[in-house]
Amino acid sequence: MAKPLILVSNDDGITSKGIKVLINLMKQLGDVVVVAPDSPQSGMGHAITVGNTLRLNENDIFGEDVTAFECSGTPADCIKLAKFYVLKDRKPDLVVSGINHGSNTSISILYSGTMSAAVEAAMEGFPSIGFSLCDYGLNADFSHAEAYIKKIAEHVLEKGLPYGVTLNVNIPPKQNENVKGIKICRQAHAKWQEEFDQRYDPNGRRYFWLAGNFVNFDKGEDNDEWAIANNYISVVPCQFDMTAHHAISLLNEWTL
Amino acid sequence: MAKPLILVSNDDGITSKGIKVLINLMKQLGDVVVVAPDSPQSGMGHAITVGNTLRLNENDIFGEDVTAFECSGTPADCIKLAKFYVLKDRKPDLVVSGINHGSNTSISILYSGTMSAAVEAAMEGFPSIGFSLCDYGLNADFSHAEAYIKKIAEHVLEKGLPYGVTLNVNIPPKQNENVKGIKICRQAHAKWQEEFDQRYDPNGRRYFWLAGNFVNFDKGEDNDEWAIANNYISVVPCQFDMTAHHAISLLNEWTL
Repeated sequence: MAKPLILVSNDDGITSKGIKVLINLMKQLGDVVVVAPDSPQSGMGHAITVGNTLRLNENDIFGEDVTAFECSGTPADCIKLAKFYVLKDRKPDLVVSGINHGSNTSISILYSGTMSAAVEAAMEGFPSIGFSLCDYGLNADFSHAEAYIKKIAEHVLEKGLPYGVTLNVNIPPKQNENVKGIKICRQAHAKWQEEFDQRYDPNGRRYFWLAGNFVNFDKGEDNDEWAIANNYISVVPCQFDMTAHHAISLLNEWTL
Repeated sequence: MAKPLILVSNDDGITSKGIKVLINLMKQLGDVVVVAPDSPQSGMGHAITVGNTLRLNENDIFGEDVTAFECSGTPADCIKLAKFYVLKDRKPDLVVSGINHGSNTSISILYSGTMSAAVEAAMEGFPSIGFSLCDYGLNADFSHAEAYIKKIAEHVLEKGLPYGVTLNVNIPPKQNENVKGIKICRQAHAKWQEEFDQRYDPNGRRYFWLAGNFVNFDKGEDNDEWAIANNYISVVPCQFDMTAHHAISLLNEWTL
């Protein structure tokens, strides 16, 4: 029986530790093809390259048994080019993105390059998962996540996902205590409370650096922020239909 | 009585025709503050600038009665900097984005810089609307849209929007026949069928240009693609909770 075909991408770039860990795990489950950004793309959301050109070059940084391409574009570009150019007529059985160095819980899904690769794959009808470790360190310890990541990927390979659904998986940082397990969650009601550092360049001109804090307004226990805070892995099924269906009847009452 | 405070942004850049038309309409409804990108940001999705600095400079291109800033970042950055630096303690009564030169119906909302400004405003709890004209021309004719845009903005100023809801408004291109009216819609089930043009630069190295066609799978008459195709203005209420709530019970049956 043919091994499953697994496409791997990320947003931290093809040389990050997280994608290497993910590739090594996926090699245990199938044939791995990598198309990942050649530079960090954190915070790129669902950006695509429309006003500029894209480069796509093959390399062998993951060894002979892994076909790998680095792309000058965004994570969403990587999935599009993988489909069009790299995979051509082959359809991946699974698309995984990550492992991100940093949390993508709650509202962060909208800013996340990691999740944009997974969402783009879902738009194409490919079962997909985005994995993020809630530790921003470049040398973050992923060891406690590995067995869980493999298990979730195996489940999706075996059972598939409903059309238009992708999984946003966040893993707590390595702690003394073992991870307690997996919770299926909704996206928490939280936001980034932005602040900007105002500085001046050597020519005396002002510039800003984005800073800010994450603020959680959500008191529930069925959301991803609660899961991470309580040392559970959160799995949020996500969709790309952004219609606020509950607001349609209200708007129909307006005399527009 | 104080006039409403209206924040205007876009993704085509502060010098585009669409934002100028929108500013002139909003000046009829309130005090206008503009924070818009200093360069085109189409396709930027909900990207934010996390690994780089941002510039924000005041200018007078819209005359003395409009406070305007151009920003080196994305549309989402513009809203964040408007809130933090430009408006400070003032809360806008309305945030409008556009008028985009080109359609943002259906799945395009995820790629749209125009809508990311509106979504970012909604995250801050500000009533917001993204306006797009389904005509990509730099000199597109917006005249048939003006009365409708003003009417929708007036309704939102008067009635507000439910928490977490923003409006994605698309306007058909100027045609011989008048626009038939406004339809409240859901996001159509459609996608971009990507293709890439492979070319070679003067050094003989390959590059790609994104091309592709929009494919509509949706047979319904309650979606934005149907509305535009039938010369109606579409209004889709959108939200930033991307949880696929309907998939939670299914995933809870998995033995993870």
